Parts: sequence; structure tokens; C-alpha cells
Amino acid sequence: MTDQKRIILKPIGYVRTKAAGDEVKDKTQTSQIVIDSEFSEAIQGIDGFSHIFVLFWLNQVSGQPKTLKVHPRGREDLPLLGVFATRTKLRPNPIGLTLVELLGVDGNVLVVRGLDAFDGTAVLDLKPFDFWDMAEDARVPEWWTKLNREKSGHS
Amino acid sequence: MTDQKRIILKPIGYVRTKAAGDEVKDKTQTSQIVIDSEFSEAIQGIDGFSHIFVLFWLNQVSGQPKTLKVHPRGREDLPLLGVFATRTKLRPNPIGLTLVELLGVDGNVLVVRGLDAFDGTAVLDLKPFDFWDMAEDARVPEWWTKLNREKSGHS
Repeated sequence: MTDQKRIILKPIGYVRTKAAGDEVKDKTQTSQIVIDSEFSEAIQGIDGFSHIFVLFWLNQVSGQPKTLKVHPRGREDLPLLGVFATRTKLRPNPIGLTLVELLGVDGNVLVVRGLDAFDGTAVLDLKPFDFWDMAEDARVPEWWTKLNREKSGHS
Repeated sequence: MTDQKRIILKPIGYVRTKAAGDEVKDKTQTSQIVIDSEFSEAIQGIDGFSHIFVLFWLNQVSGQPKTLKVHPRGREDLPLLGVFATRTKLRPNPIGLTLVELLGVDGNVLVVRGLDAFDGTAVLDLKPFDFWDMAEDARVPEWWTKLNREKSGHS
């Protein structure tokens, strides 16, 4: 039913950051999101929210992954899981989703903390975070808890 | 810099629901997500999580919105805001993002509660919800709090 469909997106801006390599995973680092001038009106009022979701294109990944299963963070001591059970970049549609703190807005530039995206990454959408977006009583699997004890950032 | 880029996505499945019209906004209703057979391996292990994010295509919206500003829920007593300060469907890239409760998995079908998507909606991605996705101390604007007191569901 959906096989024939193709969905076309256009970036609304891009990420600017000095962080490189694994530094982008450091949740304390700040980045900028530069909104394309044609969309600058669309951020009006976003500063009423302290946190936003950033949807971005994992553009260092090209083509469709050959495998649909991964070990979280490539660790073979952790279970082999479907990609939709993880936050791996190797997804059929490599869209990244990260909750960030919105520190400020200057013209068409948003300053955010905690965005794990590389310099130049295409941004697809911004959504304000509200209390429908959280589940305080959420259950996560053991492998997630184990990884989280060891490091910080998404699995 | 990003103007020339075009990003192409392919649905990974679709929504099946009996809810119609405004019924889809009822956070207590259940829906199914039918994963295309080519991706069925990719959901293995997703049932370790109680909650997942669903990214879907707001395919009842066609073309680019002519305006980049909206009143939340069309209410003129609330401020006129940029679309990125709201969860309106009228976005440059109409991707929906909803946190749902994962009630069960049966073969390539996920049963979820709280998905505000119409029957037949194309699903683009599924991501497990974890504790990096929430901000308990988040600040939201007054208009959001006002709307939330009156109704339930995203603004």
C-alpha cells in the first residue's frame, strides 16, 4: 500500500557547531541552528519554550542500511536488536530526533544545548516540547540502563 | 547552502485505526501500526520499551503552507506564532511526532495508545523513548497552559 510513495523534504536550516567527532555527543555543548531566511518568520514565539525537539537529517549516512539489526553502540555483549528498538543512525529513514535546551534566539539563529548533530547537518523541523511528550513512568530494557550507567547520550 | 538539497523518504508502514475526525486526538484510543514486511525484522526488541515516538507523514496536508504563522488551534484569542513554535500540521516538512504507549507487538503489527494519526497515515520512523527525551523542569508559554487546561492533546 505504501510501497509506491516517495516523500520529499527540504531542509529548513542547518547546524553550526565547533564540536567534531564524538564531541557532539557531549550533552553540555552548545550549537547553533541557522534557519534559512525564507523560514525566519516561522520561529516567532519559539522562545516561549525552554526545550525543543530538533529533527535533522543524518546526512553522513547514505543509502539504505543492508542490515535491519544492530547491537546498541556496536557492542556485541549487548543484544542484537531491530533498528527501531535503538537510536542508531542506520535507519530506513535516517531522521535524527533530539530534545535540546533552547538557550536563546538571535535573529534567525537559535542557540541550543545538547544537540548531537555535526556541523552542517540539515535541519528538517523544530517542535516545541510540552508535557505530552514525556512519560515519567516509562519502562526501558536492561541493556539501555546498563549503557546509560556507563555513558551519557542516546543509545 | 541547503537550498539545492532534496531528501527522499519512504514509508516503513502505516496506521490502522477506527477513529475518525477529532476522535484521533483522544489520547486513550488505541491504534495499530502495520510495519511493511520488508522491515519486520527491524522491530525486534522494541517491546522492551513501554513508550515509543512515532514519526509519521501528515499526508492530509499537501504542498507548502502559504503562511509561516498560525494561531494555536486557529484561535484568534491566542497569539499569532511561527509554525515552529506550535505543533500545527502546516509545517514546511509536515512530519508528525507523537509519544505513544506501546501496548503490544503481534508479528509485524504494533498496538499503541495515544497516536493522533488518521487511518492509512504513512509511518516514517519509530524510536524508543528513554530518559534523555524528557525535561521535567521544562518551561512552556502561557497560551500552551491555557489551551491545555481547556482540552487535552497537542497544540
